[in-house]
Amino acid sequence: MKDVQSEKDLRHVPLKHVGVKELRWPVELRDKEKGTQHSVAKVSLAVDLPHDMRGTHMSRFVECLETMGPIGLHDMEAMLDQLKSKLQAQKAFLQLEFPYFITKAAPVSGRTCPMDIDCIYKAEKGEKFKLRVTAIIPMQTLCPCSKEISDYGAHNQRAWAKLEIEAVEMVWLEDLAAIADACASSPVYGLLKRPDEKFVTEHAYENPRFVEDAVREIALRLEMDKRITWYRAEVESQESIHNHNAFAVVEKRWK
Amino acid sequence: MKDVQSEKDLRHVPLKHVGVKELRWPVELRDKEKGTQHSVAKVSLAVDLPHDMRGTHMSRFVECLETMGPIGLHDMEAMLDQLKSKLQAQKAFLQLEFPYFITKAAPVSGRTCPMDIDCIYKAEKGEKFKLRVTAIIPMQTLCPCSKEISDYGAHNQRAWAKLEIEAVEMVWLEDLAAIADACASSPVYGLLKRPDEKFVTEHAYENPRFVEDAVREIALRLEMDKRITWYRAEVESQESIHNHNAFAVVEKRWK
Amino acid sequence: MKDVQSEKDLRHVPLKHVGVKELRWPVELRDKEKGTQHSVAKVSLAVDLPHDMRGTHMSRFVECLETMGPIGLHDMEAMLDQLKSKLQAQKAFLQLEFPYFITKAAPVSGRTCPMDIDCIYKAEKGEKFKLRVTAIIPMQTLCPCSKEISDYGAHNQRAWAKLEIEAVEMVWLEDLAAIADACASSPVYGLLKRPDEKFVTEHAYENPRFVEDAVREIALRLEMDKRITWYRAEVESQESIHNHNAFAVVEKRWK
Amino acid sequence: MKDVQSEKDLRHVPLKHVGVKELRWPVELRDKEKGTQHSVAKVSLAVDLPHDMRGTHMSRFVECLETMGPIGLHDMEAMLDQLKSKLQAQKAFLQLEFPYFITKAAPVSGRTCPMDIDCIYKAEKGEKFKLRVTAIIPMQTLCPCSKEISDYGAHNQRAWAKLEIEAVEMVWLEDLAAIADACASSPVYGLLKRPDEKFVTEHAYENPRFVEDAVREIALRLEMDKRITWYRAEVESQESIHNHNAFAVVEKRWK
Repeated sequence: MKDVQSEKDLRHVPLKHVGVKELRWPVELRDKEKGTQHSVAKVSLAVDLPHDMRGTHMSRFVECLETMGPIGLHDMEAMLDQLKSKLQAQKAFLQLEFPYFITKAAPVSGRTCPMDIDCIYKAEKGEKFKLRVTAIIPMQTLCPCSKEISDYGAHNQRAWAKLEIEAVEMVWLEDLAAIADACASSPVYGLLKRPDEKFVTEHAYENPRFVEDAVREIALRLEMDKRITWYRAEVESQESIHNHNAFAVVEKRWK
Repeated sequence: MKDVQSEKDLRHVPLKHVGVKELRWPVELRDKEKGTQHSVAKVSLAVDLPHDMRGTHMSRFVECLETMGPIGLHDMEAMLDQLKSKLQAQKAFLQLEFPYFITKAAPVSGRTCPMDIDCIYKAEKGEKFKLRVTAIIPMQTLCPCSKEISDYGAHNQRAWAKLEIEAVEMVWLEDLAAIADACASSPVYGLLKRPDEKFVTEHAYENPRFVEDAVREIALRLEMDKRITWYRAEVESQESIHNHNAFAVVEKRWK
Repeated sequence: MKDVQSEKDLRHVPLKHVGVKELRWPVELRDKEKGTQHSVAKVSLAVDLPHDMRGTHMSRFVECLETMGPIGLHDMEAMLDQLKSKLQAQKAFLQLEFPYFITKAAPVSGRTCPMDIDCIYKAEKGEKFKLRVTAIIPMQTLCPCSKEISDYGAHNQRAWAKLEIEAVEMVWLEDLAAIADACASSPVYGLLKRPDEKFVTEHAYENPRFVEDAVREIALRLEMDKRITWYRAEVESQESIHNHNAFAVVEKRWK
Repeated sequence: MKDVQSEKDLRHVPLKHVGVKELRWPVELRDKEKGTQHSVAKVSLAVDLPHDMRGTHMSRFVECLETMGPIGLHDMEAMLDQLKSKLQAQKAFLQLEFPYFITKAAPVSGRTCPMDIDCIYKAEKGEKFKLRVTAIIPMQTLCPCSKEISDYGAHNQRAWAKLEIEAVEMVWLEDLAAIADACASSPVYGLLKRPDEKFVTEHAYENPRFVEDAVREIALRLEMDKRITWYRAEVESQESIHNHNAFAVVEKRWK
């Protein structure tokens, strides 16, 4: 059978990426506490394509994916090496988006419960391996202005912190979630009993945070971590007094 | 050209619905205050199909849609009559989902601003015309338990009321939004200045509402409206202490 | 601490459902081939609430969920019994939405690969246990009209069949997927090599199907399965000549 | 009332962006053919914030938005100037995402019908004004490999081209859509009669295009337009033989 993809292309347009997207796949992820955990990922796989090749061989991406075991920092790099070799490419790209579960203990009762965060591993390798880790962690923000100007109460809401980092070593998703929790008016939890709810309510009231405050606190902590070479942090809150969101972004200054 | 759709079908399976979906279309909607307003709708159009006809003529649905002027109660019925006639069907179905803007005045400053609600008009006509109107109105709920057990503060969050009704006369989307606003810990607004924010914060603190409370208050108001022959009301809150939602539903008992 | 939820309610409005929604949870699902498989579910849990009780105890829903092991027909019923008892309710509701992976073999090369389908288990128990299983299976449809009127080619597209059933015994998700595959112009696959792609292309061209055809074929197969007491089947195709979809629905006639 | 936002901030963390997001707003857009058209946009508005200011004044973003008339290139810049002045900022950001309707004529019958494309205007102004226009245009791709290796037929599917450009002059959304249409196996349409469907089917079969082909054709056309200073083009197809998508990306090389 003719291999149309391997035809010579005369248009002189190199492709930055060619591959597959929106592919769902069961994954096993390396986990700080328990070794590994299961999840379901949305996967993108791609390579670059030189100007003179007409097409890539799409089925090989899925074949590479089938060889993937538990996923951590080094496993991502091994996958990219395999993609480069199998697709005869100079550069390979791999992105995994997945929900990840962290076991959290309620602040008073100590009751533990899994809570989901959304994560993205985005990796590429040409000469060098590069991995960007994103974690989106739900939190509570309580408005300092509302607290200050009101005789009682203060509007608060579910918000989330989106932490994107590049690092020289593995930074666990659990570590990123802990940073977000420390910078919120209060962390959020999967399971709270009444004494926990009292604690969370009062703790949030004692720690009012604009999105501007929360994102700055996160930035201070990310700056101090010597493993992290680049970051972007965003806090977005589903304002409970509006039908739109407030947000604030910090991005690391390159030196 | 052969008309494959009109072939005889021998499988003896009548179809409840056949038509088009996920069609976006610019619409002009009848509006209580200003006559009409513009929006963009996601549209479904369908008819039933007798067991012995192989297919319908999909392009005719779009042709019908092209004749549609400003949309209110009577215009929906006229569209269904046209669909029945043009598709030679016993029953026709039409659904429009769209964002709708209501002008709201801030509670102290009186500053007005548009705020969006999500709406659905779902209509069918066999012998009789039937229209179900859905309005999803954002609101704030403040937790009575959190207020009661805490020394200060109370968790609150953005929530929404989903009101679905069937009525013998037109019930305006603006009327449904007013009902939801009256049953919330506080309405939400597009634009609030500081005196408004103080008012909203304190008002919510004075009116704590579980989702159970808010949906019951809505049910009491819908029960009293003699135009409304059926309803389903749901309140869902994006709990600010959890990463999941709480919800409560009332459905009218048939007499 | 005061139990605000347990207060007497004087509004005389019973609630149909009260509970939690949009809760993500790692699940283990009973699987026809391999015993069990892991996935991540979006969960709703609810009970009814009598007219004279103010609120439910939301944390208990999550506590029930924590006890859940591998999920099949009988496990769903056991969960509902536990919810009824723990929440002192007359009726309990449980819904799980999750991606599920089926191993499919390519038609010529025999290469196997997991492919995702979207599934919903929706159960309730008052007096009796009731379970509705939904499977959304991707497929290909090729237009009979386009084939008939064109000198060559025929437009085809990704479509999906949504099968909803109620049954007296467990009907496996794998069985529902097999029905959808048999009724498509062609099944779709996770991994195809070139001889497979030739087969799939020609097979689809030899089996043109309107959405009306595919849904009727599905209905005939569901009618013949004596375990199934009710069904609704829908086929929706992402028309490759339009930016909207075509769809057709059959619903079992009650005798 | 105390202005908490205006407090001095001592954390020395400047914010790249602070503002509002997920705000829906009715908009009037400048249109190549008809002057203007109505749509509904999802809006983000933001400014930068110096390291020593605690917060921004969120309500002013909405106040600026209220002054916005019909939207084109120059109107975006005027909005940014207003944001900078009203928020006393060095940089301002504005993003609008909206469906946009283009009237297309069917290829044989000439029947016209609106068809939706998704668009984004993303603008910023510090010293200089910068506007990135994105248009996502649905199209059909027919697989050259499938056609070549099969005795009859060829799989095809709905795809979309995502064109992102920066330009020194206004490039109309209609122009971007025309480029995408010219590079597809076939354009897609809102309304086709049978002779049109025959034409579209045969035309696609005569013009097989991988995503790699389609995106290269688009790149060639964007390269030739002297107004365009940067572009990124992506074609993504909802493969009708798989449950995942294929995609290809070209990005302009900076000189």
